[in-house]
Amino acid sequence: MSSQVNAPRGMRDFLPQEKLKREQLISKVVQGYLARGFQQIETPILEDLGRLTSGQGGDNEKLVFKVQKRGEEFEQALQAGDELADLGLRFDLTVPLTRYYASNHAKLPRVFKAIQTGPVFRAERPQKGRYRQFIQCDIDIIGDASILAELELLSASLDALQSIGIPDATIRVNHRELLRENIAALGVAESDALSAMITIDKLDKVGSVGVAKELGDKFGAEVADRATAWLSTLSEAEVPEQLKALWQGLGAKSARLRFDPTLVRGMGYYTGTIFEIEHPGSSSSIGGGGRYDGMVGKWLGTDVPAVGISLGIERIVDLVQLEESGLEAVVLVMDAGSESTALEIQQQLIAQGMRVRIELRPKNLKALLEQLGHNGFNSFAIVGQGVTQAGELEFKPLG
Amino acid sequence: MSSQVNAPRGMRDFLPQEKLKREQLISKVVQGYLARGFQQIETPILEDLGRLTSGQGGDNEKLVFKVQKRGEEFEQALQAGDELADLGLRFDLTVPLTRYYASNHAKLPRVFKAIQTGPVFRAERPQKGRYRQFIQCDIDIIGDASILAELELLSASLDALQSIGIPDATIRVNHRELLRENIAALGVAESDALSAMITIDKLDKVGSVGVAKELGDKFGAEVADRATAWLSTLSEAEVPEQLKALWQGLGAKSARLRFDPTLVRGMGYYTGTIFEIEHPGSSSSIGGGGRYDGMVGKWLGTDVPAVGISLGIERIVDLVQLEESGLEAVVLVMDAGSESTALEIQQQLIAQGMRVRIELRPKNLKALLEQLGHNGFNSFAIVGQGVTQAGELEFKPLG
Repeated sequence: MSSQVNAPRGMRDFLPQEKLKREQLISKVVQGYLARGFQQIETPILEDLGRLTSGQGGDNEKLVFKVQKRGEEFEQALQAGDELADLGLRFDLTVPLTRYYASNHAKLPRVFKAIQTGPVFRAERPQKGRYRQFIQCDIDIIGDASILAELELLSASLDALQSIGIPDATIRVNHRELLRENIAALGVAESDALSAMITIDKLDKVGSVGVAKELGDKFGAEVADRATAWLSTLSEAEVPEQLKALWQGLGAKSARLRFDPTLVRGMGYYTGTIFEIEHPGSSSSIGGGGRYDGMVGKWLGTDVPAVGISLGIERIVDLVQLEESGLEAVVLVMDAGSESTALEIQQQLIAQGMRVRIELRPKNLKALLEQLGHNGFNSFAIVGQGVTQAGELEFKPLG
Repeated sequence: MSSQVNAPRGMRDFLPQEKLKREQLISKVVQGYLARGFQQIETPILEDLGRLTSGQGGDNEKLVFKVQKRGEEFEQALQAGDELADLGLRFDLTVPLTRYYASNHAKLPRVFKAIQTGPVFRAERPQKGRYRQFIQCDIDIIGDASILAELELLSASLDALQSIGIPDATIRVNHRELLRENIAALGVAESDALSAMITIDKLDKVGSVGVAKELGDKFGAEVADRATAWLSTLSEAEVPEQLKALWQGLGAKSARLRFDPTLVRGMGYYTGTIFEIEHPGSSSSIGGGGRYDGMVGKWLGTDVPAVGISLGIERIVDLVQLEESGLEAVVLVMDAGSESTALEIQQQLIAQGMRVRIELRPKNLKALLEQLGHNGFNSFAIVGQGVTQAGELEFKPLG
């Protein structure tokens, strides 16, 4: 047993300093969202399997971790050759959010501005930078069809990134309708639009020449020629009428927007504006989202406008530094028998705003102090041997 | 589809105000633990199924939600009639912690003081107050065999409860060795000790007479008589030698301890001190824990002393009130077209420390304001119609 003690494949343990950084980051982002009157909610980590595989989740539906039925139900399904699973681990926070809204809308504000952070799960082939459990951090506005919803999400995301030390993110913006118009203008039939989008989505990887070639292979030389012409004018693309209100509404922050007529954004459920957040320090996007007006209606029966944006915490965490708390962090080293004194002194120091760890004096004090220095403690003092009050402590620097 | 939009059976959606309260509570508890030099960690929500069903988890092992193998592996297992699952959802945070320690101990402080909060899962028959997904909030000390570890956990737990407005919890304390001695003194054979514990554990429910009767049924009239005598002296039970250091070490806080020679504490893995936290407002315990010196060795190959205590967040949340933030929370009502002004004013007010929500003026303003009043907002102001600066806003009270 002692040889195999790692986390399951593709999943991670977080060491204390890593966890501290992640908590710091998420807490700042959430505080910023709360300040704008967004409200935090929580949904279960499991959802009914049928809901997770109902066609809303695109390719992610193939990556659901399925949870087995239990007891008699399982035995019966096994004998009957039926589906053996009844629940699944959520692969994003958007499908659960729309289900939540359908279930709870009567108790929610008319325009619902939601914050969600939490783990999601995808049974992907493990590879560098891809995990089978990872954190998503989403804000969504449900019930507002106006451009105000987009403005709030973009503004809030830029502020959130700024608050964690990322002032230089840019947001690429497009609109699904525009994209469809552009694809139609290339001479691609409406029934082939999705296939064309899949090709255009590869622009980052294969470049203009590669995209034009693949479009040519799929739809003929004329489409390829038109695509080449279209792609060569992209750098001068002017913000179109549909999106101008975004630039106007964001004021000074609009300098961080970039209109990108080729932006596709994978997931199938988007119906209007789409966004992708970029940063020079990250080779892939650090966030994204868009409008998905059709999705709530799928559960509720009535269409409700909705738009959301998600920060890619796993990528962002690599771009930022752990912020030192500035709190004085002390190790009290004590001899056995001084427990009650040490606990009392600890309480006094904590009340003064310090972080205070008690350690029983070990054989190798130097090694202990060195290790705690690496864990964010900056001084130590000895309890016992005559020292019985916080005032009598002699603090020495650590590390 | 629109008829069945609830969370899976036994699991819960949290409305904004409920979530706020839970976050508030957990954050305060964690901050208190961090101030004592404990370190927060995180483990995956899934663990290898074999680890979750290896005999460490007592009855909880029967309640594991099993996750199906995927792809070819699943097909092969199905054809071969093998186990179809390879992963499971954790049923507590202690089994994952000991696995984490075995995997990461080389990178951790010699005495590891861990904080963990997170969801755990049990496939129990849903019933009032029992959930299939719920939060645990644990602190554990691994690598310290001394009484200091127990003292820190008890002291930290009492402080944590105090910090969230529960100053009147008491902690029942016992020691597994003492319990065994007491059971032996009743005339029960060592091989029957576990069975006797199961009976004694029912004391709260069936009373002294019930316990004595059941012990009589199991082990004969003589044991029943001795049990009656033992149980009648409980109120005068003096703190035994093994536990005196706890009372001494805790100083003034020891007034919150109560020695209970009949305390059993369900889980099988405890080896020394055991605790259970009680509160007059809750019919069942609001926390508990104990020493489990044998468990880390199961994964690591070497025994490492360990002791932990868990707060029952789901029960505690019912005992406390949501704390009003004191923050001025404002609704800015605007007319369409004033988006950029509203966003700018919002930013100014947030910088002044307010919480500021923007709303497009609805047909029924009164209904909107009433609803937001219930969601913690306390004033509103109108943007547009000449108001273009934060300084020009006229705040009116809400609700």
